[in-house]
Amino acid sequence: MSKVNLLDKLSMFTEKWSPKVIAEMNDYQFKLVKIEGEFIWHDHSETDEVFIVLEGKMKIEFEDKNVELNEGEMYVVPKGVRHKPSAENECKIMLVEPKGVINTGEAESNLRAPNDEWV
Amino acid sequence: MSKVNLLDKLSMFTEKWSPKVIAEMNDYQFKLVKIEGEFIWHDHSETDEVFIVLEGKMKIEFEDKNVELNEGEMYVVPKGVRHKPSAENECKIMLVEPKGVINTGEAESNLRAPNDEWV
Repeated sequence: MSKVNLLDKLSMFTEKWSPKVIAEMNDYQFKLVKIEGEFIWHDHSETDEVFIVLEGKMKIEFEDKNVELNEGEMYVVPKGVRHKPSAENECKIMLVEPKGVINTGEAESNLRAPNDEWV
Repeated sequence: MSKVNLLDKLSMFTEKWSPKVIAEMNDYQFKLVKIEGEFIWHDHSETDEVFIVLEGKMKIEFEDKNVELNEGEMYVVPKGVRHKPSAENECKIMLVEPKGVINTGEAESNLRAPNDEWV
């Protein structure tokens, strides 16, 4: 493989809420995603999911609390825990999770993005 | 869990070549490590290993090439591939790999660090 430059990869797409795979480690994937506005409530019943904020700020709502994440901060959403990401302004994030995870979990939504789309 | 601030965690230790766990996702761990100078040749026979440079620059030597990584760049070292990390000046890195991975792999070395040490 070649090295991956995060800023270069971020410059290659503009869509929001559509994770792009940049690397694989064993059966896990590293994805970049740009978000703005509100996502939907959902969960991932089989896996934890890692959010790392690369630029901007975001919020993750849970049923019992809200978590605000700034640049350089990360959070592990435990498997099966309902959550709703959002960002007032564009926020750039790295996700880490097993290959095959659907962004909307089990929820029906037109925000469901293509899986395994590389950039 | 609480959110994890990478700079805060980096400020909590000064040792070199001794990875500190900051988060777990399923059976994987996110670790921070500060490096300077040369590590040893080693491999991890059971797993890929991800390097993400947070500050500074580093080199990973392989038997057939060298890879230079700058801030904001990542590399996936494939399982079983011998490699030797180094950095001329202090470099701050995030590692992602399964829980239980020993920094020196199978190699005998006094650079073998305690495993599963959190910060």
